[in-house]
Amino acid sequence: MIGIFDSGVGGMTVARAVETLLPDLQIIYYGDLARTPYGSKSPETIIEYSINNTEFLLSHGAQAIIIACNSAASVASEILRQKFDTPIFEVISPAVNRAVATTQSGNIGVIGTRATIRSGIYTQKIKQKSPDLRVFSKACPLLVPLVEEGWLNARETKMILRKYLAPLKQKQIDTLVLGCTHYPLLKDLIQHRVGKNRIKLIDSSIEVALTLQAYLDENPDFSKTLQYETANKYFVSDITKAAINTAEKIFGRHIDLKKV
Amino acid sequence: MIGIFDSGVGGMTVARAVETLLPDLQIIYYGDLARTPYGSKSPETIIEYSINNTEFLLSHGAQAIIIACNSAASVASEILRQKFDTPIFEVISPAVNRAVATTQSGNIGVIGTRATIRSGIYTQKIKQKSPDLRVFSKACPLLVPLVEEGWLNARETKMILRKYLAPLKQKQIDTLVLGCTHYPLLKDLIQHRVGKNRIKLIDSSIEVALTLQAYLDENPDFSKTLQYETANKYFVSDITKAAINTAEKIFGRHIDLKKV
Repeated sequence: MIGIFDSGVGGMTVARAVETLLPDLQIIYYGDLARTPYGSKSPETIIEYSINNTEFLLSHGAQAIIIACNSAASVASEILRQKFDTPIFEVISPAVNRAVATTQSGNIGVIGTRATIRSGIYTQKIKQKSPDLRVFSKACPLLVPLVEEGWLNARETKMILRKYLAPLKQKQIDTLVLGCTHYPLLKDLIQHRVGKNRIKLIDSSIEVALTLQAYLDENPDFSKTLQYETANKYFVSDITKAAINTAEKIFGRHIDLKKV
Repeated sequence: MIGIFDSGVGGMTVARAVETLLPDLQIIYYGDLARTPYGSKSPETIIEYSINNTEFLLSHGAQAIIIACNSAASVASEILRQKFDTPIFEVISPAVNRAVATTQSGNIGVIGTRATIRSGIYTQKIKQKSPDLRVFSKACPLLVPLVEEGWLNARETKMILRKYLAPLKQKQIDTLVLGCTHYPLLKDLIQHRVGKNRIKLIDSSIEVALTLQAYLDENPDFSKTLQYETANKYFVSDITKAAINTAEKIFGRHIDLKKV
């Protein structure tokens, strides 16, 4: 059983990518909707919540954990790895690896929530890999509320994207990391805004699913222990109509959310 | 000591109004920033948080409580009144009373978060007072994030306000209730959008402060028991730079936020 947690339903883009790539795995998801969003909160608070979420997933049988929330991954990954024995995957490193492998101009853009960008984690990890690369990042705190409002194609969303992305375009980036699991829902708008042939988008949901697949391929002993009980389970700490709608948009079908 | 709670710092517009109108009172404020916002969460969750917050304020000496969050007021006021003996004020009824007294056309508009609007509390309370009035309400979930982004005068904010307010303007309202304590920060933009001479805005922060003043005037025995220890205290469950900035914008001076 693969445990996936996020502050809300945005991390379901990760669950969707895992489901697509590894349809035989059983997923157990936890969305902390009662305390969402994490992106505007302090590191101490996000760490506390991440520990809670991991303990919940482990107590429900998770054998590996994916932190499907960039804000949590940026401040809590190392602490979770120290605290728990289970393999811990997160959405940042796979996207960093892909971005470093993709850029040709050496100019990489990163967008995310305020907590993710302020942590500086993307810049730090990219520079660790390749100190000569230039990283330009921009916090985009309105994108999550716009996605949750369902304005996925609204003129206002396009304008706000233009405002957020303009300084990155000026820097001649050729690679843009979508550093928030909500952003894949805006992928088409973002791609249109930055130019289809000029800038390659990196979707951390897909990258972390690929990383999990590689890990399972390389660790057959671990893979063999993975248990498959029933269908995938989607737990949330609060249920709202907006969350149900976003989940449906991500999966393209109805998802049963269970409040715990 | 007057206890005031909100999901975040928006309720400080209420603290500011109380401070201005009743400068001799001591205020103890609690902003639940670790779990903010409430407006997108379910009634059950908001009720649980409202009970927590009230217990915190009472344990710190509050002798009356103001629910300075429309989402909490809309779903939790009655439960808090049943559960606690302390006088409980909230931001909805005073604004309703003012709106009913103000309208001449009989068409009242209400804007608020999704939780507040979905609760139908404004419509219900206005109709209770005066069944012939017509109430038109509109959830505006992006306004709180826009305020917290600090885009108080941005073109994007104006466009989003136009989109949200257009259906209300079409209904020929002459009174518009700002049903969220963040919205007074957008008062000038909203007034400009709806037309200065056509539509009167009702600011629930000011109305609840006036209601508290009237209560104290009419209950001298209670007023005499009010204790004044030290300066006003501002507690929060999480601290971020954005929250500090919004608090400063509301008060026009630096506010010491204490994390508990």
